[in-house]
Amino acid sequence: MLPRPVPLQLDALFVTIVGSMAATLTTGSFVPQMVKAYRTKRMQDVSPYLMALFASGTTLWLAYGIFKADWVIIIANALGTAFNLVLLYMKYAYYKSSRLDEAR
Amino acid sequence: MLPRPVPLQLDALFVTIVGSMAATLTTGSFVPQMVKAYRTKRMQDVSPYLMALFASGTTLWLAYGIFKADWVIIIANALGTAFNLVLLYMKYAYYKSSRLDEAR
Repeated sequence: MLPRPVPLQLDALFVTIVGSMAATLTTGSFVPQMVKAYRTKRMQDVSPYLMALFASGTTLWLAYGIFKADWVIIIANALGTAFNLVLLYMKYAYYKSSRLDEAR
Repeated sequence: MLPRPVPLQLDALFVTIVGSMAATLTTGSFVPQMVKAYRTKRMQDVSPYLMALFASGTTLWLAYGIFKADWVIIIANALGTAFNLVLLYMKYAYYKSSRLDEAR
């Protein structure tokens, strides 16, 4: 006789912890990009579509989090939207100042 | 008399559609970055920590999706992990070839 398959028994708290760690990593990943861009004042190789699409996506995730009343999703995506709008602004500002340098 | 507040009544299908659109945008946002990097063969201004942390995060989101048996989360994060590992490899490959160019 085959052994009975063990069902996936996972504590809700454990799943919430995994989700929170996941959210911290994916949202936090934009912090080193902001630091690098701020230090080098260069974002030429970073696609503006990355930030624009990501910020649009996290805005929808924010709505999803509000519908589901899920604080992990709400906080992670509010921060994710903010970080990507800051990066998009940095891209624009550094592009403009590099054009001014060239014109000098 | 004040009007009675309307409770947030949202169809489950609508919420799933918003979540799927959100997932498509956040995961898809890495496609233009891959295209740009492939065309220019340059990723100097892109932080490797962005891709490394993001791929770690989406791996945990993948586990979260499996625990919750949520296909939107599973598919979006499997693709998100793959895209960011490809970008990390491109960063390494273009860095190495730019060093070879300098040495010539």
